[in-house]
Amino acid sequence: MKALVYGGPGSRVWKDVPDPLVTDAEDAIVRVDAVTICGTDLHILLGDVPDVKVGTILGHEAVGTVTEVGDDVRDIAVGDRVLVSCISPCGRCDFCRGARYGRCTGGGGWVLGHLIDGTQAELVRVPFADRGLHRLPPEIGDEQALLLADILPTSYEVGVLNGRVSPGDTVVIVGAGPIGLAAIVAARLFTPVRIAVVDPADARCTAALDLGADAAFSSPEQAEAWLEAETGGRGADVVIEAVGVPEAFELCTQLVRPGGHVANVGVHGRPATLHLEALWDRDITITTGLVDTSSTPRLISLLATRRLALPGLVTHRFGLGEIQDAYDAFAAAADTGALKVAMFGDAARLAATDGATG
Amino acid sequence: MKALVYGGPGSRVWKDVPDPLVTDAEDAIVRVDAVTICGTDLHILLGDVPDVKVGTILGHEAVGTVTEVGDDVRDIAVGDRVLVSCISPCGRCDFCRGARYGRCTGGGGWVLGHLIDGTQAELVRVPFADRGLHRLPPEIGDEQALLLADILPTSYEVGVLNGRVSPGDTVVIVGAGPIGLAAIVAARLFTPVRIAVVDPADARCTAALDLGADAAFSSPEQAEAWLEAETGGRGADVVIEAVGVPEAFELCTQLVRPGGHVANVGVHGRPATLHLEALWDRDITITTGLVDTSSTPRLISLLATRRLALPGLVTHRFGLGEIQDAYDAFAAAADTGALKVAMFGDAARLAATDGATG
Amino acid sequence: MKALVYGGPGSRVWKDVPDPLVTDAEDAIVRVDAVTICGTDLHILLGDVPDVKVGTILGHEAVGTVTEVGDDVRDIAVGDRVLVSCISPCGRCDFCRGARYGRCTGGGGWVLGHLIDGTQAELVRVPFADRGLHRLPPEIGDEQALLLADILPTSYEVGVLNGRVSPGDTVVIVGAGPIGLAAIVAARLFTPVRIAVVDPADARCTAALDLGADAAFSSPEQAEAWLEAETGGRGADVVIEAVGVPEAFELCTQLVRPGGHVANVGVHGRPATLHLEALWDRDITITTGLVDTSSTPRLISLLATRRLALPGLVTHRFGLGEIQDAYDAFAAAADTGALKVAMFGDAARLAATDGATG
Amino acid sequence: MKALVYGGPGSRVWKDVPDPLVTDAEDAIVRVDAVTICGTDLHILLGDVPDVKVGTILGHEAVGTVTEVGDDVRDIAVGDRVLVSCISPCGRCDFCRGARYGRCTGGGGWVLGHLIDGTQAELVRVPFADRGLHRLPPEIGDEQALLLADILPTSYEVGVLNGRVSPGDTVVIVGAGPIGLAAIVAARLFTPVRIAVVDPADARCTAALDLGADAAFSSPEQAEAWLEAETGGRGADVVIEAVGVPEAFELCTQLVRPGGHVANVGVHGRPATLHLEALWDRDITITTGLVDTSSTPRLISLLATRRLALPGLVTHRFGLGEIQDAYDAFAAAADTGALKVAMFGDAARLAATDGATG
Repeated sequence: MKALVYGGPGSRVWKDVPDPLVTDAEDAIVRVDAVTICGTDLHILLGDVPDVKVGTILGHEAVGTVTEVGDDVRDIAVGDRVLVSCISPCGRCDFCRGARYGRCTGGGGWVLGHLIDGTQAELVRVPFADRGLHRLPPEIGDEQALLLADILPTSYEVGVLNGRVSPGDTVVIVGAGPIGLAAIVAARLFTPVRIAVVDPADARCTAALDLGADAAFSSPEQAEAWLEAETGGRGADVVIEAVGVPEAFELCTQLVRPGGHVANVGVHGRPATLHLEALWDRDITITTGLVDTSSTPRLISLLATRRLALPGLVTHRFGLGEIQDAYDAFAAAADTGALKVAMFGDAARLAATDGATG
Repeated sequence: MKALVYGGPGSRVWKDVPDPLVTDAEDAIVRVDAVTICGTDLHILLGDVPDVKVGTILGHEAVGTVTEVGDDVRDIAVGDRVLVSCISPCGRCDFCRGARYGRCTGGGGWVLGHLIDGTQAELVRVPFADRGLHRLPPEIGDEQALLLADILPTSYEVGVLNGRVSPGDTVVIVGAGPIGLAAIVAARLFTPVRIAVVDPADARCTAALDLGADAAFSSPEQAEAWLEAETGGRGADVVIEAVGVPEAFELCTQLVRPGGHVANVGVHGRPATLHLEALWDRDITITTGLVDTSSTPRLISLLATRRLALPGLVTHRFGLGEIQDAYDAFAAAADTGALKVAMFGDAARLAATDGATG
Repeated sequence: MKALVYGGPGSRVWKDVPDPLVTDAEDAIVRVDAVTICGTDLHILLGDVPDVKVGTILGHEAVGTVTEVGDDVRDIAVGDRVLVSCISPCGRCDFCRGARYGRCTGGGGWVLGHLIDGTQAELVRVPFADRGLHRLPPEIGDEQALLLADILPTSYEVGVLNGRVSPGDTVVIVGAGPIGLAAIVAARLFTPVRIAVVDPADARCTAALDLGADAAFSSPEQAEAWLEAETGGRGADVVIEAVGVPEAFELCTQLVRPGGHVANVGVHGRPATLHLEALWDRDITITTGLVDTSSTPRLISLLATRRLALPGLVTHRFGLGEIQDAYDAFAAAADTGALKVAMFGDAARLAATDGATG
Repeated sequence: MKALVYGGPGSRVWKDVPDPLVTDAEDAIVRVDAVTICGTDLHILLGDVPDVKVGTILGHEAVGTVTEVGDDVRDIAVGDRVLVSCISPCGRCDFCRGARYGRCTGGGGWVLGHLIDGTQAELVRVPFADRGLHRLPPEIGDEQALLLADILPTSYEVGVLNGRVSPGDTVVIVGAGPIGLAAIVAARLFTPVRIAVVDPADARCTAALDLGADAAFSSPEQAEAWLEAETGGRGADVVIEAVGVPEAFELCTQLVRPGGHVANVGVHGRPATLHLEALWDRDITITTGLVDTSSTPRLISLLATRRLALPGLVTHRFGLGEIQDAYDAFAAAADTGALKVAMFGDAARLAATDGATG
């Protein structure tokens, strides 16, 4: 089959590789019908994630069709249309028993496109398939389903649930990339009274407003002034960090009210300064986290019943064979305006999906 | 009356001042029978707390007897033996309505010995007396009661409850001063399987073991090795920072397990480094806080029924008129071994208490 | 002034009574601009609430203007436009300290129109005014504000929060009177995937659908069939009892899924049968409760920003002097279709409000 | 092998049956070293649990040694000394994903000695062995380990955690059989200020006091009088039902304070009366539940470190071949004083254990 293989820092190669095989009784093989690229894939290509070995197929998000299952796969069957989740839980370790699947120590967790071959290929082997795959209802199109693989559960669990967004809250989201944008719709599930977004890119601010943010600011100062006015100087109940740089995190700790929550979602490569001299007595809660995907079944229901929608998040569409172009468009987001790019395994499917889910 | 007055950085004066008067319908006047000194008082004397104006009487912890009440004090009466809590909640603001009394914005909160005259005096005016005073049962002696004014609710609420200590947990407490020591007994209310303490002072390590810690280490490396061995490399479920310096906080974030809690109790004067590059995906919760004293009624019950005890925490005793000596002993804790010092308003009382509660 | 006075079972009299006076430092006197009638008032008139003494002015819900305050009222001033909440918390007792204001043991709680004179009058004395009154923003009209006095916080706190409604839930509300209808919009704050209502009255089913219910059934059997189909036989995550008769409660315990919540809101006069032989192993949580009004500030924000709206709930409008007619219309709800009736203190106000808030 | 087979109501037969075989990749075969009898086994023998088919081997609690594992058992190995838990979770269904293992819909849950052959045999097949077996540390003897199979997690999860026992609470436990007695030590993990037990049997009251109850009463009236005196008429924060008859449940709802919790643990065969006319406004939470055994790893740690101990609970010891005598002793508890009976697979083991763990 064809697959996108990591060739070391700076190198990605679309080439022929052997088809994956069931090697464990809990494996399934999935034919990839739609797949996307995560910001983390770009980090891997920069060499920032040394766990990823040269030769690994990238990608941890997909929608596909099951073509083969191991002897101990019980709930998923050949022919099922499934979501390939970014997390594959072993279901046995202490963390999995506590539904902390992202921290799995039993050989699962985030392994696809990381410790084992991933989804940016024509076929993918998914371990612990009963837990890492989710059957999809027909009401959810492939494009919306792709958002369930990572960004929706991440923004919901690590941003909104960790941040304890509640009815009546004032919420600020720092960063309006795909995760920050998904956090807007995820936060709205709890009916805050106001959501503001901070992002230097005007196009992303516009996208934020389209998805239901009440305000969007290109500078921290504007956000602070707005917050001061809207909350009588009190600050935000919840601030979600969706960038992954120290300055963004530090801004969050300035914007949060006493007793409020800062939920870090961003992937960080450098330490931040924590101003404990200002925060020690302010009853702040700061959380970090990797997605567990424990919310995925609920998010599937919410999407299927249109309680939740993320229109406009997929900005660019390609055939699977055009994945290198898709990477180029995604990597140059500042120029292309790309949010999420989607690649489809079949040209007819691309055409069909195009109009349906925009 | 006599009182200890803040004279600016480095200056404390025991001198005659006018007796306090009821100036608000919710005030009470309390005769101070026993009083103690907090580490925060030393910070004030260093000039670290600029809100404290020259001329303010210091102190925010006491046990006393009510001598006068304002017209709208309903639950406290003249003659009551009371705890003077470090927090006086207005009971009206949004924070008080949510039991976040430490964040009171209605004129209360931590005001004694801070924004208004405090307890290191023969008499003290307590605002919002129905909420800032707690009647004491006879089972609790003055010395144990003094610990209820600040260090027990602080270690319990900001350390143990914020840290969510649970049965079976592994708990590490960084710092074995009075707050860290109180955190040991407070944590034991939830039956962790093991508690370790880290403090460079041998005497404090010994005190920690006496109060029920399972291990006490003078160096972080020892603590790490112990934790590695005891938890199979996983780390601590809860780490409580009870020092207030960046190094201690940073140690806490190294010791905590994925999914664990770091509860900061220490008063910090400088920023710390938060290693988000290591922590972003570890499902960590970090909390800060000022005590609310919402737990004080429960802690009174626990002390009165001997479910909770802090023997040995008061190491030095003085008459109220010897308060300058008490400050000297407390400030030189490294030499004197002082943990908490207690001053008593009446020499006879000192004698009586001496043996009873040690 | 004029007031509606309880004259014993079956007797209500609109007559002249002395104006109320400030008798406590925390009292306020409020001129009643708008007032409504609660189902509980009908219970009182049936003699079902023996705590209510003959001669008491009825009513515990109003919107008005402050005309006088006691010496220890700090946050409310003469001239303020306020909500008179059904709960007046003392702010001192153990229950108030834990924000359980409905259980106040310090002389407050539900006292208006119950233990002291109430709001169905030209003027009302409100005790503990800083806590029992809430300033209203101009964005909220009198009619919507009336719903904040009791039915919105009751349905939100006792129904939705106690029932722990969460995104993706299936919710059933048994009873579509004013409280059940308010529970629909309150539940929607948490974005359940589906809400069904059960009520024998067709008009109420229609009102339920208008307010956002996904389905409304006049018979339990229909509801059970729908639930079976929608949840694959699993049952409802949350069932809210909003009637107050044993049969309705028992239906709730049949409809709830294993692990689900039954939140009782209805006022009951008779015991129910709890089928523990079927429920003992089903991980059910059942809650009861009186409203605390701790959520009132949040609900005010949500109404003011139009995150929450209850159009159509006020079905009948009267002048305050026509209160006897209003009672007649409300008591004959089956014939008149009355949900909430509103009376206004001033004819001009009635005209002005009529079109604005329907 | 020999096993105790259910022969229909009233009939239990100790007889030769075929050895169990691994029939599923996640199965393990365990040699039974120690086993006990549950009150539920007596219910089965009365014919109260019609799901149990004639010919089923009884028993759902054991300690043993693994003799064989299926191909997809990953964490448990031949030779491991293990606890056979009463719950075998499939690890795949929605309930298992939420750690509600007792509600498993994927073929697991409580199946041993219920839907499949159980532990009262020389060998037992355990499905989903990675989740239904727990490796035991050497610090825990067989007798204490037996209590981990059902009664400790049941009393802890369904009684103490569901009831939200907290430091400072007043707890009443209705029923002092094995579950009620285990609830005493489980509740003490959270340091309530006082625990009272109600049981008509004097011997059980004595056992309750031995295990740390502060008071034990043979009549409800005594318990009510004590509660009135100890709590100033307020009532118990938490009441745990550990009997399983309507009268006991109804007593619980009388003893609980406003805002308190009633945690039902008892297995009920008849409905109870719920006095909603008294409870509707009292902010009560009532929970029911089957054990999930999600706490078993924690309980193992607590037992191994002696934070938790249940001395005296095993009152009678037998060889496995004497199981009919053990049943006779257990069924006649009123005469024999039996609490838990233990049977051992090896006579030498019986002798060795006898003194060590009493």
